[in-house]
Amino acid sequence: MEILNILQKYGIVTDLAVEAHSLVRGDAQTEIPGVIENKEKYDNAEVTTIIIENPAVGALMGKAPGTYITIDAPGLRENNPPLHDKVSEILALKIETLLKNLNISDEAEILLVGLGNWSATPDALGPRVISHVMVTRHLHKYLPQSLGPGFRPVSALSPGVMGTTGIETAEIIKGTVEKIKPACVIAIDALAATNVDRICSTIQIADTGINPGSGVGNQRMGIDINTLGIPVIAIGIPTVVNAAIIIFEAFNALKQQVPGFSRQIQEQTLHHIAEKLLEPFGGNLSVTPKEIDILIDNAALCVATALNQSLHKAVGKENAHLYLQ
Amino acid sequence: MEILNILQKYGIVTDLAVEAHSLVRGDAQTEIPGVIENKEKYDNAEVTTIIIENPAVGALMGKAPGTYITIDAPGLRENNPPLHDKVSEILALKIETLLKNLNISDEAEILLVGLGNWSATPDALGPRVISHVMVTRHLHKYLPQSLGPGFRPVSALSPGVMGTTGIETAEIIKGTVEKIKPACVIAIDALAATNVDRICSTIQIADTGINPGSGVGNQRMGIDINTLGIPVIAIGIPTVVNAAIIIFEAFNALKQQVPGFSRQIQEQTLHHIAEKLLEPFGGNLSVTPKEIDILIDNAALCVATALNQSLHKAVGKENAHLYLQ
Amino acid sequence: MEILNILQKYGIVTDLAVEAHSLVRGDAQTEIPGVIENKEKYDNAEVTTIIIENPAVGALMGKAPGTYITIDAPGLRENNPPLHDKVSEILALKIETLLKNLNISDEAEILLVGLGNWSATPDALGPRVISHVMVTRHLHKYLPQSLGPGFRPVSALSPGVMGTTGIETAEIIKGTVEKIKPACVIAIDALAATNVDRICSTIQIADTGINPGSGVGNQRMGIDINTLGIPVIAIGIPTVVNAAIIIFEAFNALKQQVPGFSRQIQEQTLHHIAEKLLEPFGGNLSVTPKEIDILIDNAALCVATALNQSLHKAVGKENAHLYLQ
Amino acid sequence: MEILNILQKYGIVTDLAVEAHSLVRGDAQTEIPGVIENKEKYDNAEVTTIIIENPAVGALMGKAPGTYITIDAPGLRENNPPLHDKVSEILALKIETLLKNLNISDEAEILLVGLGNWSATPDALGPRVISHVMVTRHLHKYLPQSLGPGFRPVSALSPGVMGTTGIETAEIIKGTVEKIKPACVIAIDALAATNVDRICSTIQIADTGINPGSGVGNQRMGIDINTLGIPVIAIGIPTVVNAAIIIFEAFNALKQQVPGFSRQIQEQTLHHIAEKLLEPFGGNLSVTPKEIDILIDNAALCVATALNQSLHKAVGKENAHLYLQ
Repeated sequence: MEILNILQKYGIVTDLAVEAHSLVRGDAQTEIPGVIENKEKYDNAEVTTIIIENPAVGALMGKAPGTYITIDAPGLRENNPPLHDKVSEILALKIETLLKNLNISDEAEILLVGLGNWSATPDALGPRVISHVMVTRHLHKYLPQSLGPGFRPVSALSPGVMGTTGIETAEIIKGTVEKIKPACVIAIDALAATNVDRICSTIQIADTGINPGSGVGNQRMGIDINTLGIPVIAIGIPTVVNAAIIIFEAFNALKQQVPGFSRQIQEQTLHHIAEKLLEPFGGNLSVTPKEIDILIDNAALCVATALNQSLHKAVGKENAHLYLQ
Repeated sequence: MEILNILQKYGIVTDLAVEAHSLVRGDAQTEIPGVIENKEKYDNAEVTTIIIENPAVGALMGKAPGTYITIDAPGLRENNPPLHDKVSEILALKIETLLKNLNISDEAEILLVGLGNWSATPDALGPRVISHVMVTRHLHKYLPQSLGPGFRPVSALSPGVMGTTGIETAEIIKGTVEKIKPACVIAIDALAATNVDRICSTIQIADTGINPGSGVGNQRMGIDINTLGIPVIAIGIPTVVNAAIIIFEAFNALKQQVPGFSRQIQEQTLHHIAEKLLEPFGGNLSVTPKEIDILIDNAALCVATALNQSLHKAVGKENAHLYLQ
Repeated sequence: MEILNILQKYGIVTDLAVEAHSLVRGDAQTEIPGVIENKEKYDNAEVTTIIIENPAVGALMGKAPGTYITIDAPGLRENNPPLHDKVSEILALKIETLLKNLNISDEAEILLVGLGNWSATPDALGPRVISHVMVTRHLHKYLPQSLGPGFRPVSALSPGVMGTTGIETAEIIKGTVEKIKPACVIAIDALAATNVDRICSTIQIADTGINPGSGVGNQRMGIDINTLGIPVIAIGIPTVVNAAIIIFEAFNALKQQVPGFSRQIQEQTLHHIAEKLLEPFGGNLSVTPKEIDILIDNAALCVATALNQSLHKAVGKENAHLYLQ
Repeated sequence: MEILNILQKYGIVTDLAVEAHSLVRGDAQTEIPGVIENKEKYDNAEVTTIIIENPAVGALMGKAPGTYITIDAPGLRENNPPLHDKVSEILALKIETLLKNLNISDEAEILLVGLGNWSATPDALGPRVISHVMVTRHLHKYLPQSLGPGFRPVSALSPGVMGTTGIETAEIIKGTVEKIKPACVIAIDALAATNVDRICSTIQIADTGINPGSGVGNQRMGIDINTLGIPVIAIGIPTVVNAAIIIFEAFNALKQQVPGFSRQIQEQTLHHIAEKLLEPFGGNLSVTPKEIDILIDNAALCVATALNQSLHKAVGKENAHLYLQ
């Protein structure tokens, strides 16, 4: 549980329940009571469903109790559009599952929220998804005849980040929710992982919303059923790894290779080295691939396609791409 | 009052009080009781202040009672940055005047709102201004030491348009205002004029907010003290003229040149011609200059500079440009 | 031929051969020797092919000799993605036809050029298409194994406009063509029509490139086989109508309704009225729909889909959407 | 010289001559014959000028012979616009110095080139600078009366990156240079440093252009006097540090703290650890601050202001901000 300690000590988070679960299980990967993990195999992806039933274990993992579905699809990083399409279908299926579990009906109104900063590429996943999804709420209200059957009312918001608005993102969302009263919010955000291997190859969908401290941004207020009063599904894709984690992972690897390392070198020395290297930005340095703009574009199209397909009965897997904006 | 009738018949508006006033005064430009008009001369601009005291006359003009300040500066259209700077100073002065009239103190929190559609250049003035202004509310709240004295808390929002969010813009603003409770909203919007000569050369500042039907967009709900519960200052610059107006203006000019024109040709014939020409877009065709992107960029920098200067005591006319983002 | 005279007198152009042909044919729509016109009906579109064989007639029409294919599809303006997809297929077919006529082989390298101004929505069609097409030239050169068979080398350039680069667009293209030596250029541009009905509902494909004076921008140098030394296919969609044309069309309609109008009112009077109304922007005012951003986005996706499909054997009509970027 | 070996082994570069010089000088910081280093102190910055006279030493440093001026101004990272303005003045001075050394006259035409990828924030410095600079070449050519005296002809190009154009950036620049024949190119690019402390706080100006392997992008062809036939001034600001360097710096710090570390642990072990951690992106992972968008915006405004001021006699330090676009 050492990395977990380091993460907590430094206020660094893994946004992925699947990583947090593995960290809590430790090297021996012992079963944790109150957490159920389940795996499915698909042609181009592996899906892990983690249900956290025990709030105490959830607190240890830094995750609220609820269902976390993780799709691992390394092919998302390849230049292979037909494969991305297959992943999108799996994602659509899982979004439908969570909506059903939450008893959100096929006609219920949904508000999509793209979290993150449009102007900082690694943080731009949310707003880019929003720019591609179909928005129908105003047509339902003012031009119903322009929509065929099978389209539910969907609205979409990219509220920006506190650094450019001066306002906590959750305040804008809560204010809007109170006015338009949707049945459910689906929030899309760029995540931080602890392993570069997950960057733009893992998708997490959770019915727990977004909780304080989570995400690349600095939302101090949660975006969940507690703050908004309605269920929040969160869709996230890791786009960065915190730079401090890379350094600690390097030290950890060294420990395993060098007998007596832990005896010779104090934890404090390692922290001191990491801190000096990451000054003057402190915990705010991220590791991200150079081609992040292409990876995020692909990921955003994949999520937007899945949303169009899962939210509207009239959109099927064969024509979901046509409805991208 | 013929053009005015046409405008009203076709649901076309002039967003400018100065135009509406002139139309109501008619060819003879008779005084209208309940409306005060006042002119000032500056080196590079002429300023007209119209105070509408009588609600009935306001209704005739399509304008709420209140103060409308119009800055006419044809030089704003020229490639002459030092001149734009002079206009910006006049604008800053007038914003300060309105804030003072409304009893908004130097420390009171202000929410800036950029109305309009980032992706449609003639409608992008509001969001472009927002991208240039200084935002300080979060610093006041979380990092007060990073701000020197003389900076008030300012937040900024570009809520998008109903066509892309599915939500009435006023709902998002009202929701946010209820959460963060600023003392005043300043809303920036692209306007429609009835004369191409005013495009990107006129700036209107009003203490009445934005009222239904006004603006290039289609805000059905007002953005004013009635809907938000706090004063709303509206800053607008015309960027388009409705295409129907251009046609009617051409017919009007013809009438004045051709004796007997009005006898020979029925109003209905003219309307029929205009309608046929503007199909299939109806009233939704705008006339705009080809270089609108450059004109709007200049106008946005001019407004943002004036806002930085008028909202923060620490920013003077000599250093206002440094604070553009 | 009156409108044509007006157009020429004012230096206003129609970029559409189909409009120029109709104007030259006059009210009686008489056959013009040296011009062949041909019509096909499709489910959601009508296709007109005009072959200008006689350079003298071409000069009268303001068009270089060559083949001009016009797809008229009013459905492109509707919110109907499956219909857009059908139009895209027709466009792909016609691009293939022109490439074949020009003897450009399936493996030959092609340079796509997005003309126009990214920052001015009505002029942004070209750059938006470029942002969606698949680019493969560098993969062919440096990572051939990452491409399956059936993908030809395609490069793509959005050279900007003279107002922001200070350079004639044709110079940048010619310089690049001389370095990378493609077999053919396909240039995409926003056009000006004489009828608002054609805005974002007509697509023109021509094997003549882009000739001086044509297009919304002000390219003084042609972008054609004469300047580049290789064939140039031009794909254009009208996004504006010159404001002067709207006024003259209104006057023309009046003439037809009012007996004796032409006797009573001199042409010069009409020109004087139009000139006064359009000051201070002269010929540089355009009429464009308010929702131009959505119309152009749809049009850009339609063209990009057709390009992906027609340029790469590996991309068929059933999977062309997957390859949009 | 160990880090230098690591950098070379892994094909990782430091783009900064000042870092390369320090690395070559080693721990003892011995003088290197054929390299002259010179320091100046300013109020808010320190300037280091390195002249590499000896090509062999240059090769060791991975730098072409020539003059490299480095401005270190940690205040560039602070939210302090007046301080940025001071740094901008120093930069303007140094650009003027290099232009003078190269015998470029006050009237000579200059082409500004913004290298890098507009869509990937850490790589977007070049295109963002280009969007802010004043472009005058077309006015000189077609509208000379619209420009007062004291403005030289300046053009500007953001050619994009090979990943989106399919074309080597140097080919587009070379093609354009051959057409418009400027006297000098000034290329702006985001750089990679070896120390996070330099991110957005160091500016390097060099008269050597951009040489193969340098920069965040992958320009295989140089952009210098050899390839273009005219002098190239390169302005660069570090925006990232390669993730591999962070890991090796951590190991190096450990070596200094732990006696016997080098004996106990083989270099190969360290490389193996680093390689495993950075899979699957290999050398292509960068470390960058979360607020990179704000840092780059400030840096771009600073460089654009300095360019406007140093290139045009009519623009002085007191009014340079007014000419930002």
